[in-house]
Amino acid sequence: MATLTVHPDRLLPADPGVRDIARRLYAAVRELPIISPHGHVDPRILLDDTPFADPASLLIQPDHYVTRLLHAGGVQLDRLGVGEGPLTEDKAREVWRLLCTNWHLLRGTPVRYWFDSELAEIFGITQRPDAGNADDLYDRIAGQLAGEGHRPRALLERFGIEVLATTDDPADDLEVHAALAADPGIKARITPTFRPDRYLEPAAPGWAEAVKRLGAVAETEVGDYAGYVAALERRRRYFVDHGAVSADHSHTDTITTPLDRAEAERIYRWALAGQVSEAEATAFRRHMILEMARMSCDDGLVMTLHPGVRRNHHPDTLVRYGPDTGADIPLAVEYTDALRPLLGRYGTHPGFHLVLFTVDPDVFAREVAPLAGFYPSVYAGAPWWFLDNPALIRRYQESVSEIAGFGRMSGFIDDTRAFCSIPARHDMSRRLDAGFLAGLVAAHRLDEDEALDTITMLVTEQPRKVFKL
Amino acid sequence: MATLTVHPDRLLPADPGVRDIARRLYAAVRELPIISPHGHVDPRILLDDTPFADPASLLIQPDHYVTRLLHAGGVQLDRLGVGEGPLTEDKAREVWRLLCTNWHLLRGTPVRYWFDSELAEIFGITQRPDAGNADDLYDRIAGQLAGEGHRPRALLERFGIEVLATTDDPADDLEVHAALAADPGIKARITPTFRPDRYLEPAAPGWAEAVKRLGAVAETEVGDYAGYVAALERRRRYFVDHGAVSADHSHTDTITTPLDRAEAERIYRWALAGQVSEAEATAFRRHMILEMARMSCDDGLVMTLHPGVRRNHHPDTLVRYGPDTGADIPLAVEYTDALRPLLGRYGTHPGFHLVLFTVDPDVFAREVAPLAGFYPSVYAGAPWWFLDNPALIRRYQESVSEIAGFGRMSGFIDDTRAFCSIPARHDMSRRLDAGFLAGLVAAHRLDEDEALDTITMLVTEQPRKVFKL
Amino acid sequence: MATLTVHPDRLLPADPGVRDIARRLYAAVRELPIISPHGHVDPRILLDDTPFADPASLLIQPDHYVTRLLHAGGVQLDRLGVGEGPLTEDKAREVWRLLCTNWHLLRGTPVRYWFDSELAEIFGITQRPDAGNADDLYDRIAGQLAGEGHRPRALLERFGIEVLATTDDPADDLEVHAALAADPGIKARITPTFRPDRYLEPAAPGWAEAVKRLGAVAETEVGDYAGYVAALERRRRYFVDHGAVSADHSHTDTITTPLDRAEAERIYRWALAGQVSEAEATAFRRHMILEMARMSCDDGLVMTLHPGVRRNHHPDTLVRYGPDTGADIPLAVEYTDALRPLLGRYGTHPGFHLVLFTVDPDVFAREVAPLAGFYPSVYAGAPWWFLDNPALIRRYQESVSEIAGFGRMSGFIDDTRAFCSIPARHDMSRRLDAGFLAGLVAAHRLDEDEALDTITMLVTEQPRKVFKL
Repeated sequence: MATLTVHPDRLLPADPGVRDIARRLYAAVRELPIISPHGHVDPRILLDDTPFADPASLLIQPDHYVTRLLHAGGVQLDRLGVGEGPLTEDKAREVWRLLCTNWHLLRGTPVRYWFDSELAEIFGITQRPDAGNADDLYDRIAGQLAGEGHRPRALLERFGIEVLATTDDPADDLEVHAALAADPGIKARITPTFRPDRYLEPAAPGWAEAVKRLGAVAETEVGDYAGYVAALERRRRYFVDHGAVSADHSHTDTITTPLDRAEAERIYRWALAGQVSEAEATAFRRHMILEMARMSCDDGLVMTLHPGVRRNHHPDTLVRYGPDTGADIPLAVEYTDALRPLLGRYGTHPGFHLVLFTVDPDVFAREVAPLAGFYPSVYAGAPWWFLDNPALIRRYQESVSEIAGFGRMSGFIDDTRAFCSIPARHDMSRRLDAGFLAGLVAAHRLDEDEALDTITMLVTEQPRKVFKL
Repeated sequence: MATLTVHPDRLLPADPGVRDIARRLYAAVRELPIISPHGHVDPRILLDDTPFADPASLLIQPDHYVTRLLHAGGVQLDRLGVGEGPLTEDKAREVWRLLCTNWHLLRGTPVRYWFDSELAEIFGITQRPDAGNADDLYDRIAGQLAGEGHRPRALLERFGIEVLATTDDPADDLEVHAALAADPGIKARITPTFRPDRYLEPAAPGWAEAVKRLGAVAETEVGDYAGYVAALERRRRYFVDHGAVSADHSHTDTITTPLDRAEAERIYRWALAGQVSEAEATAFRRHMILEMARMSCDDGLVMTLHPGVRRNHHPDTLVRYGPDTGADIPLAVEYTDALRPLLGRYGTHPGFHLVLFTVDPDVFAREVAPLAGFYPSVYAGAPWWFLDNPALIRRYQESVSEIAGFGRMSGFIDDTRAFCSIPARHDMSRRLDAGFLAGLVAAHRLDEDEALDTITMLVTEQPRKVFKL
Repeated sequence: MATLTVHPDRLLPADPGVRDIARRLYAAVRELPIISPHGHVDPRILLDDTPFADPASLLIQPDHYVTRLLHAGGVQLDRLGVGEGPLTEDKAREVWRLLCTNWHLLRGTPVRYWFDSELAEIFGITQRPDAGNADDLYDRIAGQLAGEGHRPRALLERFGIEVLATTDDPADDLEVHAALAADPGIKARITPTFRPDRYLEPAAPGWAEAVKRLGAVAETEVGDYAGYVAALERRRRYFVDHGAVSADHSHTDTITTPLDRAEAERIYRWALAGQVSEAEATAFRRHMILEMARMSCDDGLVMTLHPGVRRNHHPDTLVRYGPDTGADIPLAVEYTDALRPLLGRYGTHPGFHLVLFTVDPDVFAREVAPLAGFYPSVYAGAPWWFLDNPALIRRYQESVSEIAGFGRMSGFIDDTRAFCSIPARHDMSRRLDAGFLAGLVAAHRLDEDEALDTITMLVTEQPRKVFKL
């Protein structure tokens, strides 16, 4: 049986001289609180504080990072409980065994790295998972999950999370957030995020109903375009009043070409009547992203863009298992010309913040960093999704720091629905920042005091500034 | 006169600690047999076992890796014997001198690295080529080529080649392969590969005649679309029966949009009549690639795609010297949406294998690895052509291992027509894998036993599994 | 107060063994003269030899590398004197203070690196700029600028500049260059560059007037297309006669599709009449780039392409501050098919040189290096603009050396309007070349004598050869 060790120097540079510098930098930020300004944790788990059910439904079933790797390795999604409701004890144990048996499939991936940290640091596991110890590990983790110390609130505090943003539907009443804010037992700030994607795509199934519901919630007549815009504005204000700091948008492209008012009104009308073409719907959505930027200038919500993903690439998987199971695949996306209408209008607007994410590593140097290196509103979003691993994070660090400087980075964003991976993800980021900055010090490009100041800024001030926290 | 040395640590990481780990990993796979599941060696050289004629016609004249570099450096292709038949002794010597005189042009390229290995390890050369020693080196190599020990079969065995795939026309009778398989003097498996490009491009010159010939060989009436499809299916079966394991496709894009049956029939008819437009021909080819995937699900041939190259970029060079002289240049190619029809239908089909190659390094992270990280059928093809060199192999290693895991790699593929470069190419790959994995061990991301298991798998099991050997 | 130190080993590899090799390589080229075959220094400063006015108008106000970083960090361009004429002493001091106060914004960027070198090596500054020492530094630099030793000609000599190319309008009379050439006090060769962009874009404002002026200067009737072409040819000859070695082109794409003669004539006529569409103007420009290549074959001017930048991305900034303030953003650009007409005609023309620059790092491996690795006319231009920093220079070094060899590189090009940054930029390049080559030696891919020969070639022979100096 092999041991599972999380070495104190993991991810730090190999060269002994550089590693020494990196150790010092890392030590300075290692224990700082976690600020997580964008993510997908369900806030209800914190409100209810019910113990997590079992290792599989906590760490595997809902995490598409894990399920896609096992699926690619030949494990069908139904065997992992994907798309099912709560798992029985037997099924949960079986899912857990599948992970342990296929542990080798994770080698080299950040998922493996996060798992190592979670198992060792949250659950005190000291054995590398395999077929032989799967049941034993299951029992040990399940036993801890049943105790006080591993309930959601206890972990939230133990993780040192100071800010945790969720992602929410504009029609959400945010009662959970209100209750959390009012609860003296929760010291962290749990902030909602306005995510209106579905309301901006008039050709998507169910759009008209969704918009009507939004109108009802906003107490606004949405029979025409003006009402629709007003309803969105109202719901944004509602989110602001409930502590939201940002609005997030994830569509296939970043084009922001405006429509004439009359054309927008016409498309809206036809869309409500179910008479909209794909092309019209796309034009409308692009126009509305521009409108969202205008609203951000008005209400102060930070605008974040997560473009360029073909969702549900495999139709059968969508039908059988639903969305978010790992079948989303990146697309090439253009930013420079696409965002020109938006940045032409609002790029130097005081207080406007636009955080650009990408899943195409070449785009860091070609478009995102140059934009962030001119526009005071634009920040280069931390590596997202497929890019949130050491080698590609290095590409981000290099491209953005050299082209635009550290001050144009968003700060780390975990963007996860896997609650227990949050500390491991932030820790990975801090280690990689320490290693990168140590390299600059070793190459005599920065003095060590500057590197120390920079890493501290990246972990503390920068996310606060970028996300207005 | 400078010495030519092939250092035992070449290509291993510079840091002494990491290098030590890399040495141990490399030592474990250094002597393992070579599995070459895709390449362009002419199988007849093994059947005939005629001694290679001379150093130039073996190492320079037919190898577009070499000729393009010399051409770019100012040496016209006719001076290198490109497009000529057999070289006279004088010409061969002159071509060899041109290589030696221009040896500096190869600095930094993998061609230089392979040459160093070939010269030192196959021919025992200990001097760096230059104008002064060109004739002497020529004589020494030529002398060895004339002997028993350097005939094709002797080298095949000495190289430790266990599997060698060739690339073949669907109309080929595969008699050479049959003879090799029947020959007790050949221990290696020489397997043909079905490469139907020319039969799938109805606007290409000579298409109709080629299809008719194919029909004749397949003993199938190809007067209509159904017969054409049947002829392809039959030839695939014929290849399977002769030991083929894969079908290879190299077109400019990877689009796989299906046609209606009636439309496919119509385009086929018009194409036979010489009445097809470029657009129709392209649509037909895209449809046929989808058909090829269907056939792969039926007959089990692994499907490999090598897209995105503008062949014969320089028309004059094509006219004067023919194809494959080094004038092929990469194109940007989209995979995510292009392959969606194919993967929507067959992406989770049991036993279907699709190996995606690319000549665009950004595409490893943006599209290929994400696809291989979800679809159990998709493998990320090893760096191909312009990318088969240390820095860009590193990009592949990083992007694919972190996004999809080592299990989604194809294993190394040399893809060469330069027989003598095969061991050097595989050795380079093993050294780079050792260095990469050593880096993960040094960063405490993998334990050394896992790295050892991984490198062994990459060299042995993985190509067998991916190519069903 | 922190010290400013420029360490003798800066930018060299961290590993002690590799660093030792790099030190030796760097030492061999450190003091070699500077050849700058493409840049934007105003030659009048050398003719007049007037002392530079003050630190801000020398080092900040005209340098969009600096102003864009400060602007992104929240400093409005008017506070930096951008778009203003000469600065008052008070304003200059205030601009300088803004730089010092915001010194942290430059961390990690090459701008910071160049500034460190300039401050330390040209002005003997030993303190890191900050709010506290801004005035003192200002006074110390201003004092030196007023003296003999820091006048333009003295610096030109002290920098060791042997060749300095400027960028010039085809209608320029080049009197300044003639005067410099005739001046025995100037040992460096100051060579003009033919940059006809504005004359090739018939839809751009002021095109017709510019063309008429060009005709007048060329003493050529430009009422029809033939005259227009003749005027361009004449002005190119005029530039050649005044020492020019290259013609530079910067348009959004690199497409070179020819027009029928009649169509070119028609578009030209309509354009003169102000009746040209955007599409026609673009087609005309693409045709004219092909014509420029033809002229290069005739008159020998090296052709350099700097494509793929959306100029003046932010319209308001253009209106308020003019062009070249940092608001230019890269665009994705295709080279392979776009350049096929040009390279099909002239790619193997004896003596034709085409230097391809890019602001998209992926394009080095995907298109530029493969083109340079076949066509004897094509050279891979050194990393340009956003890419002229250590990490992305490394991408260039890797991609081009491995795919095409060192002999296909252009040699370093500083491309700067910041006169005082020239030595720091060339020094950075030499250090990075030394580090890169040292890595090849450490990996036993090159012998050290070859690395030494290569770095010397890159600094001396290669720019002379590529730019026919």
